[in-house]
Amino acid sequence: MNPYFMSRFLNRIISINKHMKKMIGVVVAILLLSIHSSSAQKIVTKRPNIIVFLVDDMGWLDTSVPFWTNKTNQNKLFRTPNMEQLAAEGMKFTNAYANPVCTPSRVSMLTGVSAAKHHVINWTSPFKNNNTDNVDEQMGSAKWNMNGLSNVADIPFTFHATTFPSLLKSSGYFTVHVGKAHWGSSGTPGSNPYNLGFMVNISGQSSGHPQSYLGEENYGNVPLKPTIQAVSDLQEYHGSNTFLTEALTKEALKTLDAPIQQGQPFFLHLSHYAVHVPLQADSRFVKRYLDMGLDSAEANYASLVEGMDKSLGDVMHYLKEKKVDQHTIILFMSDNGGFSLSGKRIRAKESHTQNLPLKAGKGSVYEGGVRIPFIVKWPGIAQKGAVTDAPVIVDDLFPTIMEMAGIKKYSTIQSIDGKSMVDVIRKPAINNERTFIWHYPVKWTNTDGPGINFHSAIRKGNWKLIYNMRNGVSELYNLKEDIGELNDRSNYFPEILKELKSSLSDSLRKWSSPMPVFKSTNKTVPMPDEL
Amino acid sequence: MNPYFMSRFLNRIISINKHMKKMIGVVVAILLLSIHSSSAQKIVTKRPNIIVFLVDDMGWLDTSVPFWTNKTNQNKLFRTPNMEQLAAEGMKFTNAYANPVCTPSRVSMLTGVSAAKHHVINWTSPFKNNNTDNVDEQMGSAKWNMNGLSNVADIPFTFHATTFPSLLKSSGYFTVHVGKAHWGSSGTPGSNPYNLGFMVNISGQSSGHPQSYLGEENYGNVPLKPTIQAVSDLQEYHGSNTFLTEALTKEALKTLDAPIQQGQPFFLHLSHYAVHVPLQADSRFVKRYLDMGLDSAEANYASLVEGMDKSLGDVMHYLKEKKVDQHTIILFMSDNGGFSLSGKRIRAKESHTQNLPLKAGKGSVYEGGVRIPFIVKWPGIAQKGAVTDAPVIVDDLFPTIMEMAGIKKYSTIQSIDGKSMVDVIRKPAINNERTFIWHYPVKWTNTDGPGINFHSAIRKGNWKLIYNMRNGVSELYNLKEDIGELNDRSNYFPEILKELKSSLSDSLRKWSSPMPVFKSTNKTVPMPDEL
Repeated sequence: MNPYFMSRFLNRIISINKHMKKMIGVVVAILLLSIHSSSAQKIVTKRPNIIVFLVDDMGWLDTSVPFWTNKTNQNKLFRTPNMEQLAAEGMKFTNAYANPVCTPSRVSMLTGVSAAKHHVINWTSPFKNNNTDNVDEQMGSAKWNMNGLSNVADIPFTFHATTFPSLLKSSGYFTVHVGKAHWGSSGTPGSNPYNLGFMVNISGQSSGHPQSYLGEENYGNVPLKPTIQAVSDLQEYHGSNTFLTEALTKEALKTLDAPIQQGQPFFLHLSHYAVHVPLQADSRFVKRYLDMGLDSAEANYASLVEGMDKSLGDVMHYLKEKKVDQHTIILFMSDNGGFSLSGKRIRAKESHTQNLPLKAGKGSVYEGGVRIPFIVKWPGIAQKGAVTDAPVIVDDLFPTIMEMAGIKKYSTIQSIDGKSMVDVIRKPAINNERTFIWHYPVKWTNTDGPGINFHSAIRKGNWKLIYNMRNGVSELYNLKEDIGELNDRSNYFPEILKELKSSLSDSLRKWSSPMPVFKSTNKTVPMPDEL
Repeated sequence: MNPYFMSRFLNRIISINKHMKKMIGVVVAILLLSIHSSSAQKIVTKRPNIIVFLVDDMGWLDTSVPFWTNKTNQNKLFRTPNMEQLAAEGMKFTNAYANPVCTPSRVSMLTGVSAAKHHVINWTSPFKNNNTDNVDEQMGSAKWNMNGLSNVADIPFTFHATTFPSLLKSSGYFTVHVGKAHWGSSGTPGSNPYNLGFMVNISGQSSGHPQSYLGEENYGNVPLKPTIQAVSDLQEYHGSNTFLTEALTKEALKTLDAPIQQGQPFFLHLSHYAVHVPLQADSRFVKRYLDMGLDSAEANYASLVEGMDKSLGDVMHYLKEKKVDQHTIILFMSDNGGFSLSGKRIRAKESHTQNLPLKAGKGSVYEGGVRIPFIVKWPGIAQKGAVTDAPVIVDDLFPTIMEMAGIKKYSTIQSIDGKSMVDVIRKPAINNERTFIWHYPVKWTNTDGPGINFHSAIRKGNWKLIYNMRNGVSELYNLKEDIGELNDRSNYFPEILKELKSSLSDSLRKWSSPMPVFKSTNKTVPMPDEL
């Protein structure tokens, strides 16, 4: 109703004198002014912007920010000043987890569901219906959702679920994905970030690594080379010396101009291809590490890390420049442990030593494979420079971000396993006993490694049980006193061993988690509590 | 100011009795209700949604909608029921123009500037600094902006300008590009639609045609094939039988869900790769044309047209379903005349007969190369089924769309040549005398064709002059009585010939338009009025 009609309407129903008319006029005028100054847009911007800054394959110690009680030599090697800044402005989590490899973590993040339950327990192939497991002599493949996540029901071999970005989008957020997606195989809906709740997608596709990080190589868009890993959407930088990490950062920040100008809250999933193989040198940063005497692969890796850190700095700088830094939450994390297989053009040093004191690395259910760097900056809420030992896991991002965005009522196809971290962020010292399960019942690499190939694990409080499906052996570690998982305590704490075996088995049974079979008998691998 | 404080404030400054207080309460309550029901979002949505539905290389007669006074056999051959529907709901333009090839038209559309002035007078290569002209024995290359359009100053060989999507974006529109972009070469900002004012880009890149229209061929994303024309961003449909036109339509409509739900006006540039070569069959539609006895290339072409028309129908259906059809303007057009070179896997029939009665086709400054199908549906404004003979050109889209969006004040780097069509749309019979210039001073094909290679042209009222730079000959036609440009009237109307020569030359001089040189003398080709 416009003011003119309102005034006429009021004149008609109420008998008033001229003086009163004037007063009503004043009320109307003031109210109209107040409407203009407190527009719907401003109400909307009270919801915070949220950025998930996801790094690929970055190890727990591959940063100058120590996530352990001690600052290791590794922490001293890497240079990540912007992560330091972020940690100083936010809260550091020393017991944060993901899954042993990427797609399971990415699906858990978007759906809030444990990998053992969503059954996307391995990385997905860029090609549909293509099992990425390696063939094993002893064990036959577990049946898993090898096509990844799907927003559509009844797509074979997918996990059908509601993603949190789709809920953010319906509630008015501007949702952006930039970088590595890897949620599903080509030929299925999950390969397309637009189907998973994102309004903008730059370079997100079905592949899990870039063909090349180099602008000079058009990020792999070169005739006569395989195209599935060639990074899309960045032709602007083809032929230039713009490193992929830099190009993705620039494109990500471009997308935020419009929502910031229009006062719309945004969610940005800035998901770097770095620091995944191929370990190509980021020429802006590699010299320092070569000068330190590092092997070229290790120097390249460190340059990838520093380039990623520069991206984080650019994001923080942009937010400040746009005056939305005090209104933007940043969640920094990796999608699994650091890569620890050595070989030609991959990591140097002896295999599985890269994440010490953590055991093993990517692909393993030991701490080296699943423990990740995790920092949350939430201006006005997270205490600056706070540190918490509260255990959290990638599944927690879903309910956490919903709570951050103030979305209380929503429905999802799946039941959510994650717990919101908001209470922990408000009170870092909170008692937050949790049970986490890792389930990786397939052959990831041709050669078994520590905790690698056909393993499950469970952490409850400080205790962690490792179950090796090949030989049926369960190990037990107390992480509080033995973060390196060196002293198997299974013989000394049979009750705890039994409890964890039973807890792990119950969950795997309840979730009908994929299990391999013994080829010799064609029988399914037993649950740990059956042994 | 919230109602509580407002009420207290009013109580303090005005001495009122209880009865009056109650009345003020009523006013406040009613006003607050009216704020909620007419939220800022609803105010914003009063601005119309705008869709430019752009077809690539579609000829003037390649549709069942006749744009001439007569319905030709060609009109009877093609089946485009959704174009018929659009024409019935909107206004048909019988004298609409673009440039002889695609990039010049696309740059003119986005910038409102005549191609002779923006100097992007040929199609741009996907590769930077790569002149796409063919080498000629007689003529040396004109210097032109071979890298296309740029939003950034001082990029070599580009036209630096403000695009209308960037103005729509700043004014609160949600701006989306889907399909063929081809505004600039890789390695320059113009290759990236995000730089040209689009908030979303799906499959827009530096290449001018798709590697393949077939989902079965992953739209060209096949190892060991050239990648620059492989269509990006559509992995969801890889390996499926989804034709490219269909995939782009589905993706385009997905992007509109959020702005419609959030009440934000949108601008969609749905820019089909169809009906450009390669002429691959759209299997949903090709049978009819083969059954009619068409040669396979022609049948494929007709199926591409019908698939494009199906896309238009899907868009209109979607808008109705979402209840925004009465609030959405659709501008339908092609970017140049129909392709008329015959050969293997391209068009059949004799070359340059495909657009009869129009002379020649794509690449030519004769009508066959520049006259395009053009329809505007503007619910409530454009009279249903209206037809206008008013001449319009692709440069007009910029000011037209600005006026449609209600954006009156804006500044641009470039001066705009186009005129808003809004008056014509309101009054189709309006006298709208215009002067249009086409300037294509390069070698497009190895073999000269009618009006093809080193030509300029000017239309003023019904008169059109064709200038052939090779031999300095100017022809003069009266389009009103001779749409086929068959009867050169230059000998009979020397005054008009002189006026048009002079007008064309003046513009080319004023705009420092690129001109080729004669290799033998190294002298620039003379302006027509110098001969």
